[in-house]
Amino acid sequence: MTAADDDRLARIALSAVGEPGDPRLADLVTAHGALAVHDRLLGDHGIDDLQTDPAARRSATDPQRTLADAARLGLRFLVPGDPEWPVQLDDLAAAAPLQRRGGVPLGLWVRGPARLDELVSSVAVVGSRSATTYGADVAADVAATVAETGRAVVSGAAFGIDQAGHRGALAGGGTTIAVLACGADRAYPAAHLQLIEHIAAHGAVVSEALPGWAPTRLRFLARNRLIAGLTTGTVVVEAAVRSGALNTANWASRLNRHLLGVPGPVTSGPSQGVHQLIRSGAATLVTSGAEVLEAVGAVGEHLAAEPRGRDRARDRLSTRQQQVLDAVPAVRPAPEASIARTAGLGLADVRGMLAVLAELGLVEQEQGGWRLAALAHE
Amino acid sequence: MTAADDDRLARIALSAVGEPGDPRLADLVTAHGALAVHDRLLGDHGIDDLQTDPAARRSATDPQRTLADAARLGLRFLVPGDPEWPVQLDDLAAAAPLQRRGGVPLGLWVRGPARLDELVSSVAVVGSRSATTYGADVAADVAATVAETGRAVVSGAAFGIDQAGHRGALAGGGTTIAVLACGADRAYPAAHLQLIEHIAAHGAVVSEALPGWAPTRLRFLARNRLIAGLTTGTVVVEAAVRSGALNTANWASRLNRHLLGVPGPVTSGPSQGVHQLIRSGAATLVTSGAEVLEAVGAVGEHLAAEPRGRDRARDRLSTRQQQVLDAVPAVRPAPEASIARTAGLGLADVRGMLAVLAELGLVEQEQGGWRLAALAHE
Repeated sequence: MTAADDDRLARIALSAVGEPGDPRLADLVTAHGALAVHDRLLGDHGIDDLQTDPAARRSATDPQRTLADAARLGLRFLVPGDPEWPVQLDDLAAAAPLQRRGGVPLGLWVRGPARLDELVSSVAVVGSRSATTYGADVAADVAATVAETGRAVVSGAAFGIDQAGHRGALAGGGTTIAVLACGADRAYPAAHLQLIEHIAAHGAVVSEALPGWAPTRLRFLARNRLIAGLTTGTVVVEAAVRSGALNTANWASRLNRHLLGVPGPVTSGPSQGVHQLIRSGAATLVTSGAEVLEAVGAVGEHLAAEPRGRDRARDRLSTRQQQVLDAVPAVRPAPEASIARTAGLGLADVRGMLAVLAELGLVEQEQGGWRLAALAHE
Repeated sequence: MTAADDDRLARIALSAVGEPGDPRLADLVTAHGALAVHDRLLGDHGIDDLQTDPAARRSATDPQRTLADAARLGLRFLVPGDPEWPVQLDDLAAAAPLQRRGGVPLGLWVRGPARLDELVSSVAVVGSRSATTYGADVAADVAATVAETGRAVVSGAAFGIDQAGHRGALAGGGTTIAVLACGADRAYPAAHLQLIEHIAAHGAVVSEALPGWAPTRLRFLARNRLIAGLTTGTVVVEAAVRSGALNTANWASRLNRHLLGVPGPVTSGPSQGVHQLIRSGAATLVTSGAEVLEAVGAVGEHLAAEPRGRDRARDRLSTRQQQVLDAVPAVRPAPEASIARTAGLGLADVRGMLAVLAELGLVEQEQGGWRLAALAHE
């Protein structure tokens, strides 16, 4: 048995006695390693402040058997350091807990062919369980557009928006990942058994909870941080004011992921939480999959409809500043005297205005004079 | 005849030979006064670069008769310096033209009992002529809420959102102002004759165009800057991507007014322009009249639902920073040593973290130590 195997088994044992997302347990393991924490936890000292009493579950713990049973169910157990480990989850180590959940997961149980180390530019589509047909249609449409580019769509397999997101991704011919609050061998909600089995066959079903475990409120909260943490951006489509989707959104913010919101009628309850996110500046408004890709993709890789905002600095110029700007060449720099002649203004004035325009990022000084800044060309 | 009368008549004469919102004419009058420009325009020199040929209309100009005829129609003519002049329009002098319209109006023709100098905290409600019932309902609702607080609702008397805004304000028992592209004695669209007469009887109908003049595309563009300029904030409810409402929105931005947008379904064409405004950061998303009042009102005067954003600095703290923050008393300042004891952390660490928390505006130093900043109490 190798050291890596020991670490893996210690993580399973700790998972079994702890709760997914117990921030103290996660912090201790990040700081001291799973083996040290395991030895201390199962020794006479114990560990203060854990959210569970380890003694309550210790007797039922047999990591090797858990691993073997899981393998028979088609589940693998990923731990940090594994080639397939999604390293973006390590960002969770530095983020403060939210509703008493947090930290890097001790490990992930995975069922399905998709590799989790290939999710770096995946997108989460989350939202209300009691979605409207409007919300479900938009979620499916956004997910399909994202999936068509080869990016995985991650969600929680719940009713409403989650389901629409998974189905949209499958319709788009892409990969989709369901992160569950129960064991990855189970299906919750039960009505989504077929959907979850389909995802396990073509994408991946992922959970931090041990196989066989039931979903609980705390495990949903712990699960939400994984959806945000696995992905580059989270799109919220319909979320009531106190919904789980907003918990995921909050995690996306604190992990510095892109947080995007699809608006809806202001008269629609399920859109209220999204409007609040956009209004507070936490989320960027998006209206289509193209705009989602623009937000999460590399600059210039995906460009949605031209942002009007780019022209705003220009729009606010005084007429004379505009006159000077109009006199600055796009490519080959011109000296100040030549710009002043073209603009029909005095040299001293023109110098002052060029400084203002440079401040606004509209012009730049180069050898030989001034030219338009790259952004101002178009 | 007084100097003030001369100025008024000169402005009427210039209005008659020029076009509303000709930026060069407006700039000249702002710089040299109406009389000087009038003398030059009607003399042999003429003025270059005007958007109209003064000779074309000069013969038909009789300012005294225009004024007398207008008075018989119930119209007054306001000029800068009049007690009723809405001084906020003077901001137009410093703003660059947009679509070749701009500048302070030479004067305003007004019909109705509302006084224009009392519009300083009024709100514009504008949007699509081809509004949906959703948009019209929301516009009426927002306008009613605004009007109930005594603020005037300003719009353009067009079909769709404009009409809903005026009607909502009237339903809210408040004042509403219609700014027209045609003469203030006329009704455009003709189908809104009754609405416009009602507004003239209880609020005010305003125009820069001479009595009797027809609405033209350029006059609509000129009119839009007045709607934005008269008001403290502009609410856009449904606006297609290239609509007049976005022209008004653009003016609100360049005049540093509050620009607010009501979202709608992303599948709705009339909401696309609004979504673009919010997405680009030009407009703030609002979902109700209360949120509009919060945006345009004095701080604390109107508070819509608690903005989640206020808690964000807190949410992003590390666990230890949170621990220190939790140890800082709300009212009576505590010394650093006492905070360190309560937090269970070293004094040097605590000092560093208090500095960070102060930077974030969460705590403040007072005689005797540290306490929570006013904002962080709740």
